[in-house]
Amino acid sequence: MTELDFSHDPAARSWLASAQAPGADFPIQNLPFGVVRRRGSQEALRGAVAIGDQALDLAALHGRSVLTGDAAQALALAAQPALNAFMAAGPATWRALRHALFNALRDDAPPAVQQAVAGCLIPLTDVEHALPTRLGDYTDFYTSLHHAVNVGKLLFPDRPLTPNFQWLPIAYHGRASSVVVSGTDFHRPHGQAMPPGAAAPVYTPCTRLDYELEMGFFIGPGNAMGQPVKLDAAEQHIFGMCLLNDWSARDHQFWEMAPLGPFLGKNFCTSISPWIVTMDALVPYRVPFERPEGDPQPLAYLDGAANRAAGGVDVQLSVGIESAQHRAHGLPAAEVSRTSFHHQYWTIAQMLTQHTVGGCNLQAGDLCGTGTISGPTHAEAGAIVELSVGGTQPITLAGTGEQRTFLQDGDAVILSGWCEKPGAARIGFGSCRGTVLPALAD
Amino acid sequence: MTELDFSHDPAARSWLASAQAPGADFPIQNLPFGVVRRRGSQEALRGAVAIGDQALDLAALHGRSVLTGDAAQALALAAQPALNAFMAAGPATWRALRHALFNALRDDAPPAVQQAVAGCLIPLTDVEHALPTRLGDYTDFYTSLHHAVNVGKLLFPDRPLTPNFQWLPIAYHGRASSVVVSGTDFHRPHGQAMPPGAAAPVYTPCTRLDYELEMGFFIGPGNAMGQPVKLDAAEQHIFGMCLLNDWSARDHQFWEMAPLGPFLGKNFCTSISPWIVTMDALVPYRVPFERPEGDPQPLAYLDGAANRAAGGVDVQLSVGIESAQHRAHGLPAAEVSRTSFHHQYWTIAQMLTQHTVGGCNLQAGDLCGTGTISGPTHAEAGAIVELSVGGTQPITLAGTGEQRTFLQDGDAVILSGWCEKPGAARIGFGSCRGTVLPALAD
Repeated sequence: MTELDFSHDPAARSWLASAQAPGADFPIQNLPFGVVRRRGSQEALRGAVAIGDQALDLAALHGRSVLTGDAAQALALAAQPALNAFMAAGPATWRALRHALFNALRDDAPPAVQQAVAGCLIPLTDVEHALPTRLGDYTDFYTSLHHAVNVGKLLFPDRPLTPNFQWLPIAYHGRASSVVVSGTDFHRPHGQAMPPGAAAPVYTPCTRLDYELEMGFFIGPGNAMGQPVKLDAAEQHIFGMCLLNDWSARDHQFWEMAPLGPFLGKNFCTSISPWIVTMDALVPYRVPFERPEGDPQPLAYLDGAANRAAGGVDVQLSVGIESAQHRAHGLPAAEVSRTSFHHQYWTIAQMLTQHTVGGCNLQAGDLCGTGTISGPTHAEAGAIVELSVGGTQPITLAGTGEQRTFLQDGDAVILSGWCEKPGAARIGFGSCRGTVLPALAD
Repeated sequence: MTELDFSHDPAARSWLASAQAPGADFPIQNLPFGVVRRRGSQEALRGAVAIGDQALDLAALHGRSVLTGDAAQALALAAQPALNAFMAAGPATWRALRHALFNALRDDAPPAVQQAVAGCLIPLTDVEHALPTRLGDYTDFYTSLHHAVNVGKLLFPDRPLTPNFQWLPIAYHGRASSVVVSGTDFHRPHGQAMPPGAAAPVYTPCTRLDYELEMGFFIGPGNAMGQPVKLDAAEQHIFGMCLLNDWSARDHQFWEMAPLGPFLGKNFCTSISPWIVTMDALVPYRVPFERPEGDPQPLAYLDGAANRAAGGVDVQLSVGIESAQHRAHGLPAAEVSRTSFHHQYWTIAQMLTQHTVGGCNLQAGDLCGTGTISGPTHAEAGAIVELSVGGTQPITLAGTGEQRTFLQDGDAVILSGWCEKPGAARIGFGSCRGTVLPALAD
């Protein structure tokens, strides 16, 4: 884990006023990366950094030669239409650019620098996003004990937790092609489901559509095939984190998934938030990785002092459902759960090391999901199948009073995330949003 | 399915003598596509077609302007360092190039054409291969009833076949980054396994290393997200087929796979044969898709007249193990099983339709595996875990008399495939080879 440095100073202020607005997600201490262009345009996509209510267009900044040295070289990579090359360049490159952008945006930057940078800003309301990388592979982990028990009880009441859960971070390969950026809506999927008590399955639009509150992390420098990454080196291979919604068709999933895991129940759509918060920005929010007392300790290859001391990340998370009625009446989305990422049973370093232990090669720009994030109490559950106890106990949406067991057409699901504590700047992830459109006519 | 045309004429001969050698895999009626360069060189990769004992360098041919019209445009795509754009172009483009190459290689081609084409040939012994496409996603199906029962008996003796098997082609997402071309060796993977009767898992090099005899198929034109492909249109989205070895670490796999499926047990390496045999070349070998009597019929979206009439492909398949002793004594690999692809329970069209039924988008150049191909008898099993009944009954390797329950270091596994019948030209797939290297020091 990186040390704290001047770029984490909570007292630092930007010459851009919106960066220090109360509750701002993107103060000068954050500087998350994404890929943008002007909304509705056919402009080339390019890298950008969020600051206050603006996107700093890195291609435009590259053209102005404000940065020099290592930072200028890093900027050339980060300005590209996808961030793979920048992610591949590694922590020193990421940090060189972070520090240079921090200095250029700080309120004591020379007026000429301020003016040049100001000319590269685009209001966030005027940008549209693309995926931050050309995605190679996407892997989804399963690292919340509470989620595993909640869902396990529905599927296997007599043995909710598989015996491997406490020994390794379970994962499966997901579908990369259907990972989309926040704001991309999707149609309710068709598929096969086996109705309770039926003799044969049916072909049907999903009747048990769900979201999953997750975080994602992007791979920095990859590893060669056959060359595992040790736990102590794992975080040097992680660029940053985002919010991730692993939309799930539970009726299709639960019918198809034995014995080889989820497939169509997941691969119709996976949404991520547009801005990737760097591991550098998260340094103030690292927390000890604590195993519940009496639980098995990780095997040696998944254990280490640094991971125990600060392997966790304390990110606050919230899920909102905004129904068509909410929109019609101008009401805010109803919050349906709130939790923290630090409850996960495995750290992102452990996930990365496990992924490579057999020699699997990760590539720069690959995406990993953490699995659903459910906290220890019912109100902290990260999926509606848990909140509604398998669809048996409807939840009520604040504002409209509507009831939900699963998602209905027109429902938008909005994930939000942020880090906040005394003595550190707030670091926000923005939001991840997607709306369920009706199933297409067959 | 395409109709037979002049390019399937079994009497057609090439001016290249090796194309009609007895038992040749690559006669003029085949014309499979791959990506090559001269062995050991740093030349640019480019598309090629196998003919007899030669690779026809399509980039070189493109430079000679031998082809015209649609075929010349197709050639420009097929000459690229990866075949994604060619696959995206669709069946009419594929066929235009097939027909033009057939005419240029046929023994009645004008001498000037023969001379120009001959100048673009590289002996197969002098080429090295790359993956034929920039792989987007890789999906592995599970469509052999016999394999599912054989393996199911080892894992769940009381219910070897999951209730969904006969209703849908089961699949899971695989790892694209570790798909390699034939000839790429790999180290025995480390990982976690739970020894029988143990209280805690161990971290260990794989002790139950296996191969899986599969075929692969490559996606041609993709489908947009949210737009399923109907069964009758499915084969227009399939470019061709290859051999695939889904190497498996059974001890790691069986410990990790509940509840989300195989992950590290598979993602350390997947090998494919270098030449992709087009669906056009396989037209003479299409066979009816027959369900065992009394089995459930597919739901309507997975059923259709064309699929019933000719959804199958009759490819003969063989697995050989070549141990270090075989090599030391100059002995041929020991054949350990032989079967046919037509035994599969689902067709490739059904697999593709199922993959997209929920809206998952496929992209040109994506790879799908068929799952292990095991025939109805024990000798037709496509994995050593089946042949050795879970490692309890060793098999004996012809030639050396060595015994195997699982693979040992130094073992090379060689998959071969071909189509052959009276009245049609033999269509070969060549081979898919990989060697197990010792586990790396930890």
